[in-house]
Order: sequence, then structure tokens, then C-alpha cells
Amino acid sequence: MNLLFDRSRLRHYNKKNFKEAIGLPKIAYAQMKVVAGHPDANTKKILQFIDESRSKGADMVIFPELAVPGRMVGENFWAQPFLLECISCGKEIIAASKSITVAFGNVHVKDPKDSDSPIYNSIFFAKNRKLLCEPLCKEWLILDEEKYFYHSGCPPLPISIKLGRKNYSVGIIMGRYYSRYSAQKDFYINFLAEPFCQSSRYQKDYGFKYKVNFPIIYVGCVGIQNTGKTIYTFDGANAVFNSRGEIVQYAEPFADCLNIIEFDEIDEIPALEIPEVSETEKIYRAISYGVKTFLEQIGMSKVVIGVSGGIDSAVAAAIYTKVLGAENVVLVNMPSVFNSATTKNLSEQLAKNLGCKYYVVPIQESVDWTVKQLEERGIAVSSFVKENIQARDRSSRILAAIAASLGGGFTCNANKAESTVGYATLYGDEAGFLSALADLWKFQVYNLARYLNEKIFCREVIPQGIIDIVPSAELSTAQNVDEGKGDPLKYPYHDYLFRAFAEDNQTPEDILRWYANGELEKNIGCEVGLVEKYFPTSEDFIADLERWWKQFNGMGVAKRIQSPPILAVTNSPYGGRAESQNGVHFTEKYFELKRKLTGTC
Amino acid sequence: MNLLFDRSRLRHYNKKNFKEAIGLPKIAYAQMKVVAGHPDANTKKILQFIDESRSKGADMVIFPELAVPGRMVGENFWAQPFLLECISCGKEIIAASKSITVAFGNVHVKDPKDSDSPIYNSIFFAKNRKLLCEPLCKEWLILDEEKYFYHSGCPPLPISIKLGRKNYSVGIIMGRYYSRYSAQKDFYINFLAEPFCQSSRYQKDYGFKYKVNFPIIYVGCVGIQNTGKTIYTFDGANAVFNSRGEIVQYAEPFADCLNIIEFDEIDEIPALEIPEVSETEKIYRAISYGVKTFLEQIGMSKVVIGVSGGIDSAVAAAIYTKVLGAENVVLVNMPSVFNSATTKNLSEQLAKNLGCKYYVVPIQESVDWTVKQLEERGIAVSSFVKENIQARDRSSRILAAIAASLGGGFTCNANKAESTVGYATLYGDEAGFLSALADLWKFQVYNLARYLNEKIFCREVIPQGIIDIVPSAELSTAQNVDEGKGDPLKYPYHDYLFRAFAEDNQTPEDILRWYANGELEKNIGCEVGLVEKYFPTSEDFIADLERWWKQFNGMGVAKRIQSPPILAVTNSPYGGRAESQNGVHFTEKYFELKRKLTGTC
Repeated sequence: MNLLFDRSRLRHYNKKNFKEAIGLPKIAYAQMKVVAGHPDANTKKILQFIDESRSKGADMVIFPELAVPGRMVGENFWAQPFLLECISCGKEIIAASKSITVAFGNVHVKDPKDSDSPIYNSIFFAKNRKLLCEPLCKEWLILDEEKYFYHSGCPPLPISIKLGRKNYSVGIIMGRYYSRYSAQKDFYINFLAEPFCQSSRYQKDYGFKYKVNFPIIYVGCVGIQNTGKTIYTFDGANAVFNSRGEIVQYAEPFADCLNIIEFDEIDEIPALEIPEVSETEKIYRAISYGVKTFLEQIGMSKVVIGVSGGIDSAVAAAIYTKVLGAENVVLVNMPSVFNSATTKNLSEQLAKNLGCKYYVVPIQESVDWTVKQLEERGIAVSSFVKENIQARDRSSRILAAIAASLGGGFTCNANKAESTVGYATLYGDEAGFLSALADLWKFQVYNLARYLNEKIFCREVIPQGIIDIVPSAELSTAQNVDEGKGDPLKYPYHDYLFRAFAEDNQTPEDILRWYANGELEKNIGCEVGLVEKYFPTSEDFIADLERWWKQFNGMGVAKRIQSPPILAVTNSPYGGRAESQNGVHFTEKYFELKRKLTGTC
Repeated sequence: MNLLFDRSRLRHYNKKNFKEAIGLPKIAYAQMKVVAGHPDANTKKILQFIDESRSKGADMVIFPELAVPGRMVGENFWAQPFLLECISCGKEIIAASKSITVAFGNVHVKDPKDSDSPIYNSIFFAKNRKLLCEPLCKEWLILDEEKYFYHSGCPPLPISIKLGRKNYSVGIIMGRYYSRYSAQKDFYINFLAEPFCQSSRYQKDYGFKYKVNFPIIYVGCVGIQNTGKTIYTFDGANAVFNSRGEIVQYAEPFADCLNIIEFDEIDEIPALEIPEVSETEKIYRAISYGVKTFLEQIGMSKVVIGVSGGIDSAVAAAIYTKVLGAENVVLVNMPSVFNSATTKNLSEQLAKNLGCKYYVVPIQESVDWTVKQLEERGIAVSSFVKENIQARDRSSRILAAIAASLGGGFTCNANKAESTVGYATLYGDEAGFLSALADLWKFQVYNLARYLNEKIFCREVIPQGIIDIVPSAELSTAQNVDEGKGDPLKYPYHDYLFRAFAEDNQTPEDILRWYANGELEKNIGCEVGLVEKYFPTSEDFIADLERWWKQFNGMGVAKRIQSPPILAVTNSPYGGRAESQNGVHFTEKYFELKRKLTGTC
């Protein structure tokens, strides 16, 4: 029988058996943990993943953007020995590309001998120890990248890659922003080094970010990276999308892993069902991963947490206990005369539930002694000053000393609402080695408390009393929790007002316009009816608005400058947010609106 | 007589009498104080200077780059009401240009109704209430400007301006970087908003920055602006240069003033002799101006300074006293058992010399009490931990309470050498509302001490004993000054090593290569012979290098994240310097060099 004439059989052979005989093209994509500023460690990891990919029969392995240096390395990008080390690591990776195509992100220096040579954020494609093409340079840079890199100004050229026996035309995208692509390619690769961000506007679902019109393999990194004040988690969230924007394969977010996709046509692979993940679960995953990885990175294995019987310190205690184990978490309650039996008991209950070591270290004697030392010298100490003396006594005198003695650090448990308006004491509750909750609004802290009890510990580790009690600093009789008195913040409204200030750059002019139009609650996202309930008159509303805007731009900024590093979960965390100590400004239009509303001139 | 034929007389008339008859063209240039984030206040100032210029017969008045919004306004550039206010202020300025040409810097928004419209850093030229041309957009942006503005990518077009009866072709330069200009113009104007920087490489002399091949009027602003962590002073240093780069007129640095230049040909004006200003005098002017302006801006009129008998706190005390008056400066000495009579007496002498209120508030009882509270609970407290307990007790317990009680702030007196390696205690001597000396190396602090005595106070306000004594934290018997013991820092060498790390991005690889080549002292700028004196062997040298590199990248960064705002005098102040908490990294080439030097493998 002449095989050439048996077309049906040939088609069958082509469409199925032939592929099986020679194997489908396999692409490995590495959701690797990148350690910023340590090209040697990253290269070691890349080489391991290349070996693993080869041994699993992959034709190509791809690594994230800036996989060699990391992205947030500060002015290391201006240090010649660091750049040369990155280049030398790149050569090692290229030399390891025997029989496999390797694509990875690194810096590209036009003339490494010239210390003023332009530096590019680039992708390198290599096979059999040779570069397949010139380094592909990133088209558009964002934010701090501009400080170090040149941008190419044009999209990287597509590249033709032989996988198995077929040539594929592969489009290259670097980063989040890129020109629109109209040319049809077999598939695209998006190389990224983008942090996890719970509220990011481009995020479709947990980690799966694009709906595009062509198949795309998305390769990002995991780990944490920081810009000093802000610690970002990287979830990787690598995935393969078909041209309808459906996911056909994905990596577990935050996992340091290598995945392999085997395909002829990505569009022929059946789409996966993606499990839904609640916002609180996303936040929990990011925060617990961030805390764990940060502690590992700075080599800290013991933490001390001041527990007040309030919600923030309780949530912090539960998270650190989950991450480090109860034996490595020490809880300290530091009562003054203003602390109620209620909160003291709740703190003790919390420690018991979590199984942590628990100390009670009273501060009253020391506070009295400080006041005495001042008054003996003729310095009058007001009750407001006494409030802050208590807060500093707790953190700077007790917690810092215990943490240092135990060889660990103490935590800052401030939330984002307090941080916005500086409702915390510098060197007091604003102090610590890490602010794990400072990018969360108060309502998110409560959600996290419930989530921890229900889903993580599966029992009431955070006593219900802590969730139910009125939030209070308990620094004076005016904040007596047993009388239902507490913080001056009305969180169900202020959380949303402050979010408009801090995350959306809204000003009192915007807020007052919305208030006048009756659109405020809708626009800032808080419960309808609250504004009228809290502020019977326009004057009340305006007084509150101005009070907090002044705090936000005044003491708020001053305190944030000296606050601990913040674990980011939004794309506008303090620290990441550019702000200056420039005092308070209201626009002329604001005053016009105010005059209209209050009838004064 | 027919005048037309008496050419010699006509020439004479043209060249002298005619000019006198119609008056020479006059250009006013405003070295105005710009308050960042307050377009209303800046506009008021601009309008006053326009009136003053007009009344003095000026044909044109020019204002600095971004004179309306200020430069360091953080994310206000993303807030629509702020931008619209700037635009509205711009219109007010244009409306005030009756009979005078006004040039000023402001934001330019292509389409103010579209909140995504590109924003440019621009110069506006107006006369008789009309714009003379489209806004001129800045060609190249630097650093954080990229975050907010688009760049035009091409130099602003020259503009033809009628001054008196003659048309002048005026070239426009914005900012520090610009394309090379070859076209001959009558003169150029350089609009700037650049901070003072003592070590800036482009600076020719105090404030006078350019040597160019055409006449140029240089217009910058004064005041202070900040990016949160870093406070920059702006010296303005406005001047008019002839085409040989000589100064023909200038404004006093840091003065809020309007100058007027009258000319036909700038090159015909005789050059001025510029008085020489020492580096220490420059630094003193910048720091005293920065401290004074910052205090005014945050509304603080009383400061508390912990004085130890050491050089840093003494210099701080002298500067604040000069700025605020002795009646507004409170000095506090806080001895423990480790403080010598020597330093206690020197502190008291300092207070007496300056005429400040002086308190002695011992900390020993409180430190003992803290240790007792911990030990009673089974927590062992090491002597190292006890050192830090003392430091925190002083700042967070005593100084913060006194400052709050007096309605002021307390200062941080850390210098740049300590800040580099974290040789200070968080919430202890690292705390305060402002670090006025944290961009100065120890040798500069000593220079400042001598300068203050000799030139500012003209008597020994800082006791010579403070200048002579060994620098010591006096936190343990190992730091006994009377036995000549003190800090582990060898400032005459470490100042320069740390400067190489912090200001020039040099790494241990660079340092070790220079050490091996015998070029180290020359390259880092310290006294020749010191390295051999301090480090008899390569091993000693390397151990020291690694110790401080680790501190610089480890605890140093962690502490700087929480340090107070820093007054910048270099172009690489901490805060302004981008750095991450990424742990310590040595390059492979460093290890190679080390192996060669020590003979180990």
C-alpha cells in the first residue's frame, strides 16, 4: 500500500500519532523566588531550574523579568561591581543552555567597561551556549525604574523559536505596560516582576491578570522585595492563558516552583475552573507570606508583641503565631491605671488560646516616676502628654528591652486608618521592626480576625470579646471601654474617607463636592446613611473633614516618616506613596464650596 | 545743519545719548521663596514681585521653574483639584502682566478636564494679559519628576522678546540638564528649582554653577522643600553671567529677593569679583537656613536637646541657639553611672556659654527599674541590652516628655558616619523631630564647631574640652572617656570609607582593589598613612571592611528607615539615597581579591 495515497491515515498520523511519537513541545516557566540584590543566589536557582527543565524534557525554560539582580536593589544599579557580577552571572546562565532554550531577565549594559554606559532592563534568549538574539530591552519603564534604566521606546521584536520540530513566532511583553499588539503570534510571553496587590485595578482575579486576544504565558517571581520603607510580596501567579483569556494552566501563588506546559496549540487545551478566593483570604496569604519571608530574610525567629486586648494586636499575635509557632511569640500586656480588667482578661485569654508565653509588665510606676522627674524641675505635664508617656513607656522602655534580651524584635500593630491621621505615638505604638497591618483599614483587620478564627485556627483563638469591644487606646478615663468610650475615629466612615485621601488622592474639595451632591457615600464606598447619622449638620461634617485632613497632612506625615517598614497589600501603601511634610492646603474652590454649604462668607 | 549727514554725531547719539534717553532694557529676576504645595501663597508672592518690577521700570520679570506649585509636592501632582488650582493661579499671573513681560514656571496640563491628561513642567511667557507663546515644556526630567511629568524630548524653542525698543532672541533652558545649544542668542535664561548641594559636581562656586559660552540669567528659588525623609535647602544663587562665564550680577544666596539687571549687551558689563566662601561656611549657611525655615514651616519655636558633653550635641545646641535664641532652647543632660564628671561638666559649661535653660535628669533609677522588671520575670538582660536601654530612656522617656510638655520637639544629633553603620539606638539617640547634622561626616561636625566659635559666636561657646575629648557614647565602662576610650569608629579613616559607600556607591570590591593597589587613601580622600597605622595586616583591614559593610547594609538600613527627616547638604543624603533592606552581598570578584590578599582559598 502506498502510504502517500492513504490521506485519511496520514492525517490521523499527523494529528495524533506523529505528535506522540516526537512528543509535544514543552515550555517550563519558573515561578522562582528572587532575592533582590543577590545575583549569585538567583543564578544558582536559575541553573537548578534549567537542569530540572532539561531533565523533564522541556524545550524551553523561561524566567521572570530581572530574575538575576532582582528589581528593588536601590542604588546597587549604580555600582559597577554589582552590574559586572550580574553580567557575569548572565554569562553563566547562557553557558548552561545546552540543548534547551533559556529566556531570563537581567540588566543589559551597552558597554560594561564604561561606568556611564546606559543600562537596560532586558530579556536574554539563549540556546546551546549562544544568545539567540540581541538582548530585548524594556519598552516602557515605570516609577523608580526610570532612575536606573533607559527605556527602548519600542516593543521588543518577536522571536522565532524552534520547539520540538516546529518554529513558533513568539511575541515578547515586559512588565505591566506595553504597546498594543496587533500582529498575530503563535503565543506571547509576558515577563514580569510585579508585586502582589490586593486592590490593583488591572487584576482580574487572584494572580490572574490578563484577558488578551492571543495565547500568553505569564512568568513572574515570588519572594519579597522592598524599597526600605515598603515591603512588597510577589505572588508570581504564573499562568498560561488561551486566546480567549481563559486559564489553561497555572502555578500556585507564592509557591517557589517550576511548571511545564505541553502543547501544540494552546487554544486546544481545555480551560481550567479557577477556585474563587475571598479578598480576606488573599490578604491573609499575602501578609502571612510577607511576614514569614521577611523574618527569614532578616534572620529573626522570635517576636515580642504588646497585646492590649484590642483587635490590632490580637490579629498580629495570631498571624505571627501561625508563622513562627507559639514557642517563638511572646505576648506582653502593660497595664497602667487606665487599663480595664476587661481588656487585661481578654489579653490573657488570647495568650492562653494561642499558647504563647505571656508577661504582664505594669508601667504605672515608671510613668509616675517620669512625671515626678519633670515636675520636680518645674515642668508641668498635661494629661495629653501623660497619654503619650504611657505609649512610649510600653514600646521604647519595655517591649524594646524584652525583644533585645530575647534576641528578637517587637512588632508595630498600627492599622492604616491610624497611620493616615497619626493616631499613634512615635516611639510608642508607632514603633517596631515591622508594621504588618499598616496597609489594612480597620474593617479589614476585623475581617482578618474572623477569618483567622474560622479558617486558619478553626477555633476562637481571638476571643469574641476582642472583636466586639469598642476600639480604644485606654490612655485616659475618656477612653474607658467599660463605658463604651474609645477612639475618636468612626471607622465605618473614616476608613473610607481616609482611603479616598490616601489611595485615590482625593482632596477635601472632591469630598465636599460629593457631600453637597449627595454622592459621597457611593463614591468613597461606605454604607449609605452613615454620614447623616454621624454628622447632623454641614458644620459638623466640615469640622470633621478639616480635622482629619489637617492630621493627614501634618502630624500624620511627620509620624509616617519615622514609622517602621510597612507590608504592602495595596498599590498605595505609605512609604510607597510619595508625600512631603508641606503642611495643610485647602484649594480656593474648597473654600467656595464651604461658603455655599454653610452660608457664611 | 543737516543732522542726517553728521554721521559721527549720529553714531555718538546712538551709542550713548540715545540709550540714556530711552533707558536701557531692564530684566528683573526673582529669587523668590517657594512654598511647596501652596500655589496660593506662591502666587501672592509672584504678584507682589510683578508689581515691584513694574514700579521699578523693568521690561520683564522672570520667576523660577515650578514657582507656582513648588517642586516637591508628592502625589499632589496627581490630585485634580490641586492641578486646577495651579492652572487658575497661572491665569491670575497672566492677567497681571499689564505692560510687562512675565515668565514663570508652572505645571501645564494639556486637557485640564481630562484627569488622565499629560502634565508638563513648563515655563509660561505672558505680556499684556496674553500668553506670548505656547507653554514651553521641559526637555529632560530627572529622578522623581518622571513620576509626574511628561518630557517634551526637545529643547524649548527660543523666544523673541521686545525689551525697550529692541527685540532680543532669548534661549530657554529648564533645569540642570539640557541639549547642547549651538545657535547664538542674545542671551539665555536658565529656569531652575535645584536644591543647594555642598558637594555637587557641577557647582563652580557657592551658588554659581555654569560656565557657558553665551550670556545667561540664572533664576532659581529659595526656601526649603522636602520629600518626607529628606529636607533640601534652596539657595537660589541667582546670577547673570556674561558669555565668558563671568558673573556680572548676583543675588545673595538664600535671600528672598528681587534683582534687576539693566543692560544693552551683557558682555559689556564689567565682571564682579566673587568673594570666596569656605566649605564650612557654606554648610553652616545651608544648615542654619534649613533649620530656621523648617521650624517656621512646622510652626515649632522651642526645642529640647539632649547634651552629652560630646561634639554632635554641642554643635546642634549652638546652631539651634543661634537660630531660635537661647530662651527657646532647653539643654538636658541625662547621666547614668557611666557618665564621667568630665562630660557632665562640659555639658554644663556649654549651657552656661550659650545661656540656655539647663536640666540634669538622671536615668539610672529608671534603667535599674526596667532591668529589675525584666529580671523578675526571668528575662536575662545583657550589658549590651543595658546600653540601649539607657539610650532609649534618654530620648523616648525624658526628652520626648519634656519636649511635649514645653510644646516643642527634641532634636536628633546623629552624624552621617553613625547613620551609615547604625551606630545609634532606635528610639534613643536616633530619635527626634529633625536630624540637622545627619548629612555631615564627623570631620565636618568638628569643622563646624570651630567655625561656630570663631566666626558666629566669636567666643568659645563650645568648650574646647568638647572639641578635644575622645568621641564616646559613655554607655559602659568600655567607653570611659577619662581613660581615652570611646567609639569603635576611627573617624579619620571611617568618615572617608563610609563616604565612598554612601555617596559614591563604592563596594568592598572597589575598596579592596584600591587597598591592594596602594591607591585607597588617595581614592577615598583620607590622610595617607592612616590605613597602615590602623590596620597592621590585610586581615585586620578586611575584618574592619566587612564589619562596617555588613552594618551599612544590615542594621544601618533598618535604622535609617525609622530615622527622623534629614537636612541634606550633599547630593546623596540618606532618605534621598534609594536603599533596600536586602541584607549583605559581596561580589565573587571581592572574594577572589580577598583570597589573593590573605593567601587563603
